[in-house]
This record gives sequence, structure tokens and C-alpha cells, in this order.
Amino acid sequence: MTFINENFIKIPATYLFSEIGKRVAEHKAANSTVEIIRMGIGDVTLPLPDASINAIIKATEEQRDSKTFRGYGPEQGYDFLRNAIVENDFKNRGIDISADEIFVSDGAKSDTANIGDIFDQNNKVAITDPSYPVYVDTNAMANRAGEPTLNGQWTNLVYLPCNERNNFIPALPAEKVDIIYLCYPNNPTGTTLTKEQLTVWVNYAKDNQAVILFDAAYEAYISEDNVPHSIYEIDGANEVAIEFRSYSKTAGFTGTRCGYIVVPKSVTAFSGDNERVSLNKLWLRRQSTKFNGTPYIVQRAAEATYTPEGKKQVRCLIDYYMDNARIIRESLQSIGLKVFGGINAPYIWAKTPSDLTSWAYFDYLLKEKNIVCTPGVGFGPSGEGYVRFSAFGNKEQTLRAMERLKQP
Amino acid sequence: MTFINENFIKIPATYLFSEIGKRVAEHKAANSTVEIIRMGIGDVTLPLPDASINAIIKATEEQRDSKTFRGYGPEQGYDFLRNAIVENDFKNRGIDISADEIFVSDGAKSDTANIGDIFDQNNKVAITDPSYPVYVDTNAMANRAGEPTLNGQWTNLVYLPCNERNNFIPALPAEKVDIIYLCYPNNPTGTTLTKEQLTVWVNYAKDNQAVILFDAAYEAYISEDNVPHSIYEIDGANEVAIEFRSYSKTAGFTGTRCGYIVVPKSVTAFSGDNERVSLNKLWLRRQSTKFNGTPYIVQRAAEATYTPEGKKQVRCLIDYYMDNARIIRESLQSIGLKVFGGINAPYIWAKTPSDLTSWAYFDYLLKEKNIVCTPGVGFGPSGEGYVRFSAFGNKEQTLRAMERLKQP
Repeated sequence: MTFINENFIKIPATYLFSEIGKRVAEHKAANSTVEIIRMGIGDVTLPLPDASINAIIKATEEQRDSKTFRGYGPEQGYDFLRNAIVENDFKNRGIDISADEIFVSDGAKSDTANIGDIFDQNNKVAITDPSYPVYVDTNAMANRAGEPTLNGQWTNLVYLPCNERNNFIPALPAEKVDIIYLCYPNNPTGTTLTKEQLTVWVNYAKDNQAVILFDAAYEAYISEDNVPHSIYEIDGANEVAIEFRSYSKTAGFTGTRCGYIVVPKSVTAFSGDNERVSLNKLWLRRQSTKFNGTPYIVQRAAEATYTPEGKKQVRCLIDYYMDNARIIRESLQSIGLKVFGGINAPYIWAKTPSDLTSWAYFDYLLKEKNIVCTPGVGFGPSGEGYVRFSAFGNKEQTLRAMERLKQP
Repeated sequence: MTFINENFIKIPATYLFSEIGKRVAEHKAANSTVEIIRMGIGDVTLPLPDASINAIIKATEEQRDSKTFRGYGPEQGYDFLRNAIVENDFKNRGIDISADEIFVSDGAKSDTANIGDIFDQNNKVAITDPSYPVYVDTNAMANRAGEPTLNGQWTNLVYLPCNERNNFIPALPAEKVDIIYLCYPNNPTGTTLTKEQLTVWVNYAKDNQAVILFDAAYEAYISEDNVPHSIYEIDGANEVAIEFRSYSKTAGFTGTRCGYIVVPKSVTAFSGDNERVSLNKLWLRRQSTKFNGTPYIVQRAAEATYTPEGKKQVRCLIDYYMDNARIIRESLQSIGLKVFGGINAPYIWAKTPSDLTSWAYFDYLLKEKNIVCTPGVGFGPSGEGYVRFSAFGNKEQTLRAMERLKQP
């Protein structure tokens, strides 16, 4: 008699995006002629950089001929990409990471979801609230979250609230934790930590022999100086932190799928008999057992983002979205909303007016302005009273949406 | 204090391919001028079908323009591919599978590794011996295998020996099991089950409320009539079986990465309170939480294998390798070896002469004939006394290797 993993059915059905879809569809049905502008979307809209397109086509032509054909590649990724990553994302910032500490993958969603495989079920996990739902759901699936509660939290997770009161700087947890998820620049709030603020967490991890899982998927959007692009800019982080990177938002790879994870050889955790074990070795073991590498042609596309023309094209994409972010930010401020993010991230996190709930303001924007945002409460209880605007849309639509907002 | 998943360090270091590599390197160093022919390889050598190459290039050009650009796709795969799969791989064989029972992935290795996520840790798992190492290792990582023993087995797994004595037809297990891995056509032995023989397993699963994980990655190599291409050719299998498919060996996708899994909505397993739960829903939940879809351009490449020209080109690849298989099979027989497989699979499983161990015959072939095979014992204890030859090599090299073997 086969039994299921019971944790899977404890997870409440994904409510956020289906509920948004339902409300938008109903509104559209009742108002078939209006233009609804979607600003809730977390997906990019600009095409892939030409450099990546050309690299894919060149690599694909190689696959047409047995002399240049490539079959199975290394599970950890090809050296050409791992070396380009080391050189451009780390050495250029004075960070000492070697190619065998880089593992190329099909994206940060898989990596942040799969990383739990190498950790014991009984570790205490801390998660900032609001957060990317994958952190919570995958820990629930792995029996690390306990039971769901009525307020949308789980009994065994430690939540680190981030809100206006603490200026979105999570406080250290009151109880000792073993694994800490940090995402900066943050999804969904668009806020960041300074080097000093991130140092507090690295020191906590060192003092408590904890591990930080640092999601830096939005790193390319950083515009301010004192915001770390990598956790390894912080002294000692290479002993306690694993970092996640992605080409999805940086270079438009959401449908092309490539990312990577950095597991420094000096990061360890403990075996049952209190021996320190290198997480780099465990992750290599995990990947070589459960993964067969990212497509060769996709790795060439990622490599091309580091060429001079690739870098220029990626810069253009980011500038385009960040100009949208500025427009959204300034427009929301001009109508009197308190806004956060949008300076080092493509997300603007807005406090709802008149203490409306996230869903009430969502409904107002949908029905009165024909604008779709994302209700903040969908990212966790601390998101209540906020909504998220995304800068990944088309510029003309973004401008039109903001004009509508400004009209009384 | 962070603790690791202790099961990871129980798994013995992967010995097989590193040991082969070491022995080959040593032989090469001592004999630098000889041509060593590698017949151990499980990777393809012929290029991708032109139809797939052209489809990738066309899809990639779409990604250059925001009007045709595609970002995140459905985690389960695009309908264009799921519909093509239903039509060509199932409907054409009279099998009733619907598109929402198909989940497109980056390959059968990930799928056969990840499927364990949806099952309880305490299920009793049966695995044919010898087998693809991923089945064993991923169950060990998930704490389902118990402890490793000195003979290379694990205390909690139920092994189903397949060898000359039982004509490679596994007997039903003496103790009750909950999850059964079957791979047909088999890797590494190249053997198959007839419909009647597979029916025995489907009936076992129904009678014992067990689930069969059916790996059909080599289905395209079947040449004989009474060998099922899909487990769903067997009555009742759609209540008890999940099937794994891959484009890797069929269409040369080992470095391009695409496969799929079939989870019929009628396959169930039990929750703790003995309710039947649909595994289709659980797998959808798993994939939408931990996976972000297969690259759009790769799904187009897979779709192209179902076009008239794609089918012709795939047929040519398979015919080429199966001609190699015939050459290897006949040559090994002509020197008096007992051989299995090679008729419905690209692998030939040969009994070593004079009761040599797998490694002793490996060394003989390497040192005396400059041929690299794979020692059967590397796939499990029942592989001792066998070696595996692969038909995925170049034809001229295959012929040369066989000539060498025939020379006294």
C-alpha cells in the first residue's frame, strides 16, 4: 500500500494567482471594452538580448554536425560558463570564488527549492515575511514547516516580519535558528540591506553555526553604492552562505531557463556526530545524482551575456525596466501613497491608502482604474496592507496606468 | 547549528565511472599510440535531427522580438508539445492518455529522481538488480533505503535479481512492497518483458495497492511485436503506474534536455487516514512549486521530432545505433560469449568468459583489445560476471573493435 508524502496535502491550494485571475476575468467579462493593464506580473516582457540569441543559434548549428555535437555535459555546468561567471560576477567585484564553487542550473526556482535536499529535516528555518512562496512551500513539503495555521503561517517556521515599522530590516530571531532565507534586493518589497545590515546576519550565522540561503536573483537592479551585490562582499560570508543567482530577470531568461548557485567550499554544516561536512560536496552529490545539466545551447546564451555587446544589451533591458520603476514610484508618491523599493529592484511596494486591506485596494484599482497589481498579503501575513507593482511591463502601458491613477 | 541530511554521506562515493576513467587513463599513459575504443558510453554520438535544429532556430528567432517573445511557460509544459505527445506516443497506439496527464521536464534523470518527493518515507521500495543507479541513490537520499551493506545493497530496499538463471524476468517479491521501479527496455541489460510478463506486475500492483514507476526511456528501440512500448498497453496500468519518457536516446537530446512523465489521473496512493489521493495533483503541485518549466526552444525541438521529417530522422538515428547493436551482438556470439539485449535496446549485456569477474574481463578487454566496456557489477550485485557494451558509438569504431575481439 503506497502512502503519499502527507506534507503535500497540508499546503493550502495556491490561492494568490488563481484568485487574481478569477477577479480579473470577472471584471473583464463585465467591462469587455476597457483596456486592463497588468502590473502584477513578475515576468519580463522585453525580448532576449541579441548576443544570447546569436549564441544559441551558433551553438544549435554545432549540434547539427557529429564533429561538433555535444551530448551529456557536466552536471555542474560547462567550464566556459562557470569561468565567465567567476570572472564577471565575482572577480570583478574583488570576490574570491572559484569555478568549482559554481553550479549552473535551470533557474533559481529549482535551486532554492532543491537546496533543502541536503539539510536535515529538523533544522529550524527562518524566513522573512513577506517572501517568495517557494521558500515556505518547499520547507513544508520537506516536513520542516510543521502545521499550517489559520493566519497563513506554519507552526515550525520562524517568521521575520519586514514592514514599515522596522523599515523592512528584519530583526534577528528571538529563538535560535539554523537556516535563514534572505532575498536582497527583496521580492516582493523591492527593499535592500546595506553592507552593515547584512553583516549583522553573517555574524549571527557564524555565532550560531547557521547557514544563510541568500537569493540574489535581482542583483542586477542595484543602483546604489552601499548595497551588496553578493553576500560574499561581507567578511566571513564564505563560511556560512550559499548564494542563488538567475539570468531570468537580468537577461530575460524566464522562458529560456538558466541560473546558478554558489556553494563555497568553506561552507559547512554538521553531521549527526558533530563533524563538519562541506556543503559543496553534498550539493555536487545532489546535482550529479538528480540533475543532468542545463542545455548546452542555453549555457552558451548565458555566457553571451558577459560579452561586451551582451553586457550592453543587458544594461539596456535593466535601464528600461528601472525607468518604469521610477515612473511607478514617482506616480504613486504623487498621489500620496507611501512607497518602498523601486530603486534597487524592479518591484514597488506600496502601502494601501486609508488602511485598506491588500485585496480591497486590489479591487479598487481593478474596478476603478482597470489596473492589476498583486495583493501584498499573498506573500505572507506581513504583506497585509500593501500591494506590489511590477516594473516589467511595457513603458507606454505603464505610463497610461499611472495617468489613470493620477486622475481623481 | 545546521545539520546536514545524513543520508547523503551514507552513499558510497560513485565508484564506477571514476574507476573506469582511472584505469583507462593508466592504460593510455602506458600505451600512448594505441587507439582505445570506448564502448562503455551511455551517451549518443550522432547529431540532433535537422527538424529539431530548425525548430530551435525558429523558436529562438521568436525570442528576438517582443511581439513573439515568450517568458515563463506553464510548469507542466506547453500544450503544443503535450498534445503532440498524446497524439503520437499514445493515441497512435490506442492508449487513452490526456494532455493534462503529461508533464514535460528536462529529462528522465530529474523525473525518476524527483518522483520520490510525493511519496512517504516509509514506503517499501523494490528495485530490479542490476539497475540505473539513480533509483537506488535517490531513495537512499530520501531515507527510504536504510543502511548500505558491504555487498553494495541497502538494508531497506527489496532487490529483484535479474540474471541468466531467471532469463532476466524478475520474480515477484516475497515480502510486500509499495513502490516498484521497472525499466523496460532495460538499462543496463537490454532485456525486455512481454505484455504477459508485464501484466504480472500490473496485477501485483493492483492487488497490493502498490505503485509502479515505469522507466521507458529506451522505448524507441523496441523492434519486436510482443514488447509493450508503454505500460499503459496493459489493462489496469492506468490505475497503478507512472511512466517516464525521454528524448535523450531517442532523438539525441542528451545535451539538449527534454523528457516527460505520464501521471494518469486515475493513479492514487493513500494519505495517513487511508484516503485515496490522486498522484496527478500531487505531481502538479510538486512541479509548480519546485520547477519553472523546460525551455521554450527545447520544447519546440521535442515537438519537431513528431513531424513527418522529424520522425524519419529519428528513425535513421535509431536504425544506425541498432545496426551497431546487431554487429556487437553477433560478434560477441561468434567468439562464444553468451549475450542478452541488443534487439529491443541499444545495450548488449554479455556474460564474461570463464566466469571472470566483471572487472577482470573489463581489464582484459582494455589491456589486450584496447576496448572500454562497463563492468556489470557497477549496476548492482546481480551484474557481477557481466559487462555492458553500448551501441551508441561510431560505426567504423564499432566494427574495428569487433574485429579486434575476433582476433585470437
